[in-house]
Amino acid sequence: MVKVTFLPDKKNIEVNEGTTILEALKRAGININTPCGGKGICGKCKVLVVEGITTASIEKELLSGEEIEKGFRLACQTKVFKDSIIEIPLEIRLDFNNVFSSKLKGDIHHIKKSFSIDSDLRKVFLDLEKPSLDDQRSDWERIKDGLSLKKIENILNLKVPIDILKKIPDLLRKSDFKITITLQNNEIIDIESGNTAKNSYGIAFDIGTTTVAGYLVNLKTGEELSAVAKTNPQVIHGDDVISRIGFTQKQKENLQILQKEVVNTLNEIIKETTQRAKINRSNIYETVIVGNTCMHHLFLGLDPSNIASSPYIPVIKESLSLKARDIPELALKPSVNVYMLPNISAFVGADIVAGILSTSMWREDKIILFVDLGTNGEIVLGSRERLWTCSTAAGPAFEGARISAGMRAAEGAIYKVKIDNKFITYKAIKDGKVRGICGSGLIDLIAELIKLGLINKSGKLVDREECNPKLSEEIRERIIKGQKGNKFLLVKGKETENGKPIYITQRDIREVQLAKAAIFAGIKILLKEVNISPEDIQKILLAGAFGNFINKESAIRMGLIPQLPLKKVESVGNAAGRGAEIVLLSEKTRKICERISKDIKYIELSSRTDFQEEFVDAMFF
Amino acid sequence: MVKVTFLPDKKNIEVNEGTTILEALKRAGININTPCGGKGICGKCKVLVVEGITTASIEKELLSGEEIEKGFRLACQTKVFKDSIIEIPLEIRLDFNNVFSSKLKGDIHHIKKSFSIDSDLRKVFLDLEKPSLDDQRSDWERIKDGLSLKKIENILNLKVPIDILKKIPDLLRKSDFKITITLQNNEIIDIESGNTAKNSYGIAFDIGTTTVAGYLVNLKTGEELSAVAKTNPQVIHGDDVISRIGFTQKQKENLQILQKEVVNTLNEIIKETTQRAKINRSNIYETVIVGNTCMHHLFLGLDPSNIASSPYIPVIKESLSLKARDIPELALKPSVNVYMLPNISAFVGADIVAGILSTSMWREDKIILFVDLGTNGEIVLGSRERLWTCSTAAGPAFEGARISAGMRAAEGAIYKVKIDNKFITYKAIKDGKVRGICGSGLIDLIAELIKLGLINKSGKLVDREECNPKLSEEIRERIIKGQKGNKFLLVKGKETENGKPIYITQRDIREVQLAKAAIFAGIKILLKEVNISPEDIQKILLAGAFGNFINKESAIRMGLIPQLPLKKVESVGNAAGRGAEIVLLSEKTRKICERISKDIKYIELSSRTDFQEEFVDAMFF
Repeated sequence: MVKVTFLPDKKNIEVNEGTTILEALKRAGININTPCGGKGICGKCKVLVVEGITTASIEKELLSGEEIEKGFRLACQTKVFKDSIIEIPLEIRLDFNNVFSSKLKGDIHHIKKSFSIDSDLRKVFLDLEKPSLDDQRSDWERIKDGLSLKKIENILNLKVPIDILKKIPDLLRKSDFKITITLQNNEIIDIESGNTAKNSYGIAFDIGTTTVAGYLVNLKTGEELSAVAKTNPQVIHGDDVISRIGFTQKQKENLQILQKEVVNTLNEIIKETTQRAKINRSNIYETVIVGNTCMHHLFLGLDPSNIASSPYIPVIKESLSLKARDIPELALKPSVNVYMLPNISAFVGADIVAGILSTSMWREDKIILFVDLGTNGEIVLGSRERLWTCSTAAGPAFEGARISAGMRAAEGAIYKVKIDNKFITYKAIKDGKVRGICGSGLIDLIAELIKLGLINKSGKLVDREECNPKLSEEIRERIIKGQKGNKFLLVKGKETENGKPIYITQRDIREVQLAKAAIFAGIKILLKEVNISPEDIQKILLAGAFGNFINKESAIRMGLIPQLPLKKVESVGNAAGRGAEIVLLSEKTRKICERISKDIKYIELSSRTDFQEEFVDAMFF
Repeated sequence: MVKVTFLPDKKNIEVNEGTTILEALKRAGININTPCGGKGICGKCKVLVVEGITTASIEKELLSGEEIEKGFRLACQTKVFKDSIIEIPLEIRLDFNNVFSSKLKGDIHHIKKSFSIDSDLRKVFLDLEKPSLDDQRSDWERIKDGLSLKKIENILNLKVPIDILKKIPDLLRKSDFKITITLQNNEIIDIESGNTAKNSYGIAFDIGTTTVAGYLVNLKTGEELSAVAKTNPQVIHGDDVISRIGFTQKQKENLQILQKEVVNTLNEIIKETTQRAKINRSNIYETVIVGNTCMHHLFLGLDPSNIASSPYIPVIKESLSLKARDIPELALKPSVNVYMLPNISAFVGADIVAGILSTSMWREDKIILFVDLGTNGEIVLGSRERLWTCSTAAGPAFEGARISAGMRAAEGAIYKVKIDNKFITYKAIKDGKVRGICGSGLIDLIAELIKLGLINKSGKLVDREECNPKLSEEIRERIIKGQKGNKFLLVKGKETENGKPIYITQRDIREVQLAKAAIFAGIKILLKEVNISPEDIQKILLAGAFGNFINKESAIRMGLIPQLPLKKVESVGNAAGRGAEIVLLSEKTRKICERISKDIKYIELSSRTDFQEEFVDAMFF
């Protein structure tokens, strides 16, 4: 047997010598795109062998010499004969969502370094005496006395919910009075037959407007056991929070429909994460949930109407400790604690609080700028001394909406663009025929066009004649005159799925200008509030799944974020999900989150007269 | 307008001069039996005018001179012309159950004397500022700040359940930010539009095996507003707790069926008591429940199986604080507190704890014997220094079961018997044709037969020839020889509903002997435990609806209770229900009840070898 480690998942699997990488991937539960079905014909299943020598035979026809030299092999043709480390490129992954989740692997080590695991969850095995005429203690008294012998404190005030009390008589007798009790906050939250004291898990959720991610964690070791991300099914009612809120206002039942949809998704994630980790979902005892304020309200079934219109009032901003039984149909034991992180305002939610926690902004001496890009751009600025925040309506351009060839970051979306003198290279998700361009691709493209002088400072896509004469004819030819300004040909029809070419139009550029101006104006207002200049910022953190794929250089070039040396700009991935995991493992961080949400200074941009000014200023590239 | 007061209900009503008593009764919601429909023909609607002069005309034909002189009038014929007080005899009441509840009237004064009203339930009216862009506090923050201004303590840790949180945004805006908050134990339990701070009610329930009684109380004044008693619908599954438990063991769903039945009854009582008191049931904020241990378990949906067989183990004996939402389909607001008084053992329940509380046994210097007669006789003995208790299986004879003409205390049951030299007089419930004899009638009858020497010491119903020669022929003739011993004719066929005579048989007497022996032996064992003799008992309290109707003299004569001077024997009515009302009004009595149930010494008779001996001894009359 040989051991194969797959990156970036860090997933290990043992296989017989001579097994193909494709087979090993399948066994590891990693699915990749194999258009030819693993016959060694299409050459799409390129993987990078980082460590471990493997044969390369048939590949020579399908891979370039350079690729083979770098270590690329075809997964379907290459056999493993010794321990190996193999990296699976993003492009060939079948479940794109999983990439986001697998990105989180390894973060746990960071958590364990920064926060010790602390929780008042406790599982105690009891081997109780059996009742007799001389010992007529009630079942409950017997259990309490057993716990008392195990030195559990405050037994007198120990609470037991009715649904657990109902189980006690039968369970005690069927288990021959050998049971495991799970306690938390001076309350019994579970009772099981036999000794199950070792099995103690929690799950953290980040409910995004577009994607819902769940992270299953071992509460004893802090290890992340599995992670699953799914599309938020509420998207059918609109891409952004405002349209979701609009949907709830149409009919009374719609709020419950949205709640049910997100709860169902959580249930699917619970099912998949526990199946992958091969644990029993009944041993999940703790849940932490983050999301923006609207997602928070919809998950709880709270009317979000007053979030949407001035003066933008949420029902509750504070943290909430609930039980699974409070959320209709949530597939966890009724006594499981559900902790909702606090929100900051109607448009700065618990996800941002979690991001502040996980990035350690709240305890850094450095002045840090944190930007979560999305339909709403949430911006946080400050240091341990004080934090400021605001939310700015960037609009859906970065999500691909209102852009002629725009699309969300899904299969076929161009997410990277590079324009050399003559050639345009781009990468699309899953590398098949392209279908459109997503936010990070758009930022790249516009940054490249600015660099080449094809877009001027005011955002105008110039005429062919205005171009730098040094520019190659190949690029110049791509500028096409239209009725409403020029457009630029990015992809020719033969390379796209529907056979139609992909352009970026003058109007598209205007949409991006509006979006980036909103973000940048928000940053400017915060700088003004904190009374510092952009140079004082010591670090910029780009958060969100989108922030993970964005090219920092392009973002700076197009003026989305202040001009800082590249090494000071960092993508922090799903900072919110990571924050939720930290809170799951470390009880004391709840107080930190509550303090963060309370102490942070929220700036309401809609009441700032200087915002419009900054906004117009920021329109220029 | 004149004011009419009805006894024993103490119900006042104002009517126009010249209104008939029958009409006034109807308006007061008191229903009486009027066989002729109020035409002045049958003469059944006899009421006693205690105060207030009224005319008496047609009555002369239907009432005796003596009756008229005493103040008896026909309700349908007598008109009220000035303020009057009128007593409505038990026999003519239509809803017999109501008599039990009305017995409680006036007890409240006693409660108010003994316990001050104390509760941490609080209703606060808030007139809140409206939100603006300069005041973006969340709805919940706004409410908390409002409460803070009203000097509510510990606001920081104030909890709000999700179902109330859901109501907040809409309610705040519909009520123009003028709301009333109900708080209890640092939790919001209700939120209402406008100022409703005055409306605060509670309901106490005594869930008996046969009868369920509910008492609606004003939590601010301590006043009992209405009381309703209903038959426990579980009786269709068996009269006693053992047969109910047997029913739950037949099929898994049966436990839920029994729970549903009793919850439905509570719901009916909630509906009727609130309708009678003309209050809104949504202003009930507190519930206290007592009952025997089996009824306690069935109400909670707890499996009572282990109560029924040795070593007799309840699931829980301790008090429980639940919420209405924990009890499926209970028609109270979900956040309403449901407090279950503690039990003592499998067969000494929370009803006895409530009885000990309401009779003040727990704080009396006197040595008191408390006997609750029923299928299970619960006995308590002791003083403030220490209390002892046991439960003894009296069997269903006193409930009328296993007695040839036995029946429960319902319409047509003989509940009083007197035998003079020649005549037998008896009283039946509602005084129509008789249908059988209930427990108190049976005790009377046997005591009378003992007095006359017709039953000898060993319990034998003697032959005619063995009778005292001074006994009249009329009585002697009633002894009839049968195959299995003699029987005694109590009622001739022409006076009974079905035309068949009512006898008491030798076998009936044996059943009563077994029952009374069980009770008396229990008392003897307790006396032995306490190490006192019967003469040391300073007071005997007879509890339960049955205890209310029992003739003390008869009970002593037949040896059901120790021979004490009559004035030291007291009926305490529904001591359990009264105890539940006290707990409803006085929070601190919960601690007292918990102490009572913990400190009382429970004697398990089934493990006492001396019980059989005492039992055989006690068989003799």
